[in-house]
Amino acid sequence: MEPFHHTATQILENIRSGKLTVEQYASSLLERINQRDDDVKAWAYLDPKYVLEQAKELDQVPKDKRGPLHGLPVGIKDIILTKGKTTTTEFAASFTGPATCNAHSTGHTPGGSSAGSAAAVADFQVPIALGSQTVGSIVRPAAFNGVYGFKPTWGAITREGQKFCSPMVDTIGFFSRSISDFEVLADLFALHDEEESSFSHVKGSKFAVCRTSKWDMAGEGTIAAMDKAVELLKAHGAEVEELDLGPDFDKVVDWHLTLVRLEGATSLWPEYYQAKEKLDPALVQGVEELVKISRRARLDAYDGLAALRPRFDKMADDYAAVLVPSVIDEAPAGLNNTGSPIFAATWTGLHTPVVNIPGFRGKSNLPVGVSLVSARLRDRHLLKVSEAVGHIFEAEGGWSQKSE
Amino acid sequence: MEPFHHTATQILENIRSGKLTVEQYASSLLERINQRDDDVKAWAYLDPKYVLEQAKELDQVPKDKRGPLHGLPVGIKDIILTKGKTTTTEFAASFTGPATCNAHSTGHTPGGSSAGSAAAVADFQVPIALGSQTVGSIVRPAAFNGVYGFKPTWGAITREGQKFCSPMVDTIGFFSRSISDFEVLADLFALHDEEESSFSHVKGSKFAVCRTSKWDMAGEGTIAAMDKAVELLKAHGAEVEELDLGPDFDKVVDWHLTLVRLEGATSLWPEYYQAKEKLDPALVQGVEELVKISRRARLDAYDGLAALRPRFDKMADDYAAVLVPSVIDEAPAGLNNTGSPIFAATWTGLHTPVVNIPGFRGKSNLPVGVSLVSARLRDRHLLKVSEAVGHIFEAEGGWSQKSE
Repeated sequence: MEPFHHTATQILENIRSGKLTVEQYASSLLERINQRDDDVKAWAYLDPKYVLEQAKELDQVPKDKRGPLHGLPVGIKDIILTKGKTTTTEFAASFTGPATCNAHSTGHTPGGSSAGSAAAVADFQVPIALGSQTVGSIVRPAAFNGVYGFKPTWGAITREGQKFCSPMVDTIGFFSRSISDFEVLADLFALHDEEESSFSHVKGSKFAVCRTSKWDMAGEGTIAAMDKAVELLKAHGAEVEELDLGPDFDKVVDWHLTLVRLEGATSLWPEYYQAKEKLDPALVQGVEELVKISRRARLDAYDGLAALRPRFDKMADDYAAVLVPSVIDEAPAGLNNTGSPIFAATWTGLHTPVVNIPGFRGKSNLPVGVSLVSARLRDRHLLKVSEAVGHIFEAEGGWSQKSE
Repeated sequence: MEPFHHTATQILENIRSGKLTVEQYASSLLERINQRDDDVKAWAYLDPKYVLEQAKELDQVPKDKRGPLHGLPVGIKDIILTKGKTTTTEFAASFTGPATCNAHSTGHTPGGSSAGSAAAVADFQVPIALGSQTVGSIVRPAAFNGVYGFKPTWGAITREGQKFCSPMVDTIGFFSRSISDFEVLADLFALHDEEESSFSHVKGSKFAVCRTSKWDMAGEGTIAAMDKAVELLKAHGAEVEELDLGPDFDKVVDWHLTLVRLEGATSLWPEYYQAKEKLDPALVQGVEELVKISRRARLDAYDGLAALRPRFDKMADDYAAVLVPSVIDEAPAGLNNTGSPIFAATWTGLHTPVVNIPGFRGKSNLPVGVSLVSARLRDRHLLKVSEAVGHIFEAEGGWSQKSE
C-alpha cells in the first residue's frame, strides 16, 4: 500500500514513530494528485512546490515541538480563508457544479457544495478535508463519493474564517475514510460531550430508523440501502424501531429552506451590491426575491425550527442513534447539477450531529450512503456508534472503499 | 458650524450639491481628530495622508458614477476586516477598556466594546460608525457618549467580515448623531420592513415602559431618565402603559449570558489554541471554563430564549415601541472597566431591534440614554418612532449633543 492509501490516524502514527517522513508522505499525495487531477479536478488551489518545501521544513522540527497534526495535510473547502483549497459551488450556495468529478466516475457529479473535499478524500489525494453544510453539503458529497462525512452539532465548533451562507444553520464539518480520523479532528476542535457515551456494541443496542415525510422521493439505491442497513443492524443483534416524528415535523424541510433562502440572500447582499454581474444568476435571483419572503414566513421558520429541536432531542435520546437516508439515490449523471440535499435538510435544521456512513451500492455501481443522527451535543457518542456501525456496513453492505 | 459638526445626511447633501468637496470635509474631520485624539483616543488605525489622497480622488469622480455614500467616512470597529478602524475591547469580548475616553470626560469610560466608534461619533470626529453588539456593546457606549446607537434585528443585515463572539446573537449596528443617518445606512444594507409603519406622531400613540426584572440594579441617573422619558411622552400626548413581561422572562438575562460564555469560548478556541499567552486572562479563563457549562444549561439557553422571542413580539406589537433602560447609570469613572451591559442583554437575546436615544443627564453631567425596542423585523418602523421621540428627548430631556 502506498502512503496515500492510509487514513490520517495511520499516517500520524507512522510519522510519529519515524516510519515515514512528512516529505515522503507529501510526495506520495502529490504523485496521486498528479495522476488523478485531470479526471477528478478536486483542487481550486494547490502549489506542489510550496507543499514540498513545507514538508521538508516540518521534518526538521524536533519531535517535542510538534503539534498533534504534524505533517498531515488537510483539504480545505474554498469558502474558508486559508492558503490551499478544494473546490466548491459558488459561495457554497449554488447547485451548479465546479469542474470536479465523482471520485468513482468522471461522468457523475461528486455532489455539492463541498465537492472537492469529498472527491479528494475519496480519491486518496488527501486523508481528511474540511467542508461546510447549510442544507446537505457534507452528507451529500460524502454519500456520493463513498466516504465518511461528519457535520457536528450546530455551534459546537468554531466557524472562524468561513464565508457564511446561513448563519443559523451553517456548520463546518469533515470528510475522511475512517471514523478514527474524525476523533483526531474532534479533539483538535475541542468537541466534547458532557457525559461519556455508554455505547459499547451494536449487539443489544436499540436503533431507530426514520425515513421522514419526504420518503416518497427516495430512489431505488437509497430504498435498498436503508433496507439493507436495517437488516444488517438486526443481524448483528441490534433492536431497530420505526420512528415517526409526527405531523408537527412535516414543515421542517420547508422552514429550513425558507431560512436558507432568507439568510443566504442577506449574506450575499455585499457581493450583489458591489458586482451582481459576476454572480451565478440563480444567486442574483435569490437576493432579488428576498423581499418576497413575508415577515410571518421568516419568523415561523426561525421559531418553528427552534421549538422542534428539543422535541427531537428527547426522541433521539431513547436510541443509540437514528438511521436516516443521506441522499435520494446514488450520484446523478452529469456535472451540471450537484443533486438534491433534501434528506439532509431535516437534521441540519434541527442542529443535530450527523454522520454519513458509506457501504452501499447503487445500480450504476456508484456508492450510496446512509446517515446516523443523535441529539444535539452528543457528537462524540455519535462518532463511537458510527465507528461500530461503519465497520459492519463497509464489510457487508456491498460497497467498500478498498474495492475501488 | 464647521463641516465636522454636521450629520451624515447633511454632508451627503452638501457634497451632492457641490457646496462642499470631499477633500474639504476630510480635512475638517482630520483637523478635529488631530485636536482631540490625545484626549479621546478613539482610533485603532488611521492614516491621514491616505484619507486625504482618497478624498482628492473621490472629488474627481463624475457625479453620475458616485455611490450613495460618496465622500462619507465611516468609523469601523476593529473586529471587522477593513483598512481604517476605531478601538474596541479585546475581540469585543473583554470588559477591560482600550485607552479610549468618553467623548465628554477623559476621566470616564466610553463604554464597550464598541468604544472608539461611539466616542468618535460623539466627538464629531466622524459622522457615522459601525459597531457590533453581543450583550450591550452598541447600546451602552451610545448611552455613555450621548449619541444614537442602533442594533437591528438579529440576522437582518450581513455580518460579513466580522470576528464572531456569539453567532446566535452578534449583530452589526451603527452609531450616529441623528436617526436620519441610520435611514441612509438601513437603505444601504437593504434593511426593509414588510409593511410600512403606520406611526405618524407621538401624540395619540401608545407606548409601553418595561423596566425588566433587573430594575433594582438601576442607578439614580437611569431612574431619573426613565421617569423623565415617560413624563415627556405623556406631555406630548402619548399613552404610556407599564409592561410586565411575566415570570417566564426572568431567566432571559441568565440564559443570554450562558449563551455568550458558551459561544464566546468556542469562537476564541483558535486564538486560545495557538497563542493563549497573548489573550486577556479573563478570556483565557472563559475558554477553559467552557466545559463547566452543562449540556442541559446550553440547550436550555438556546431553547428557552427561542421560545420567548415570538412571545415578546406579540406583546410589543400592541405598542408604537417599548421604552427600556439602556444602562445602569451614566458612564462610571475610570477607563479600566467599560461598565455593565445588563439592561441591553434582554433585547439582544430576544433578537429585537433596539435604538439608544440620548437626551438625559446624570449627576456628573455626563449623558444618560434610554432605549426603544420593537418586535423583530420592524426595524424601519422603530427608526421612524425613534426619530420623533429623539427630537423630544434631545430638546427637553436636559442634555443635548449641541450643548457640549
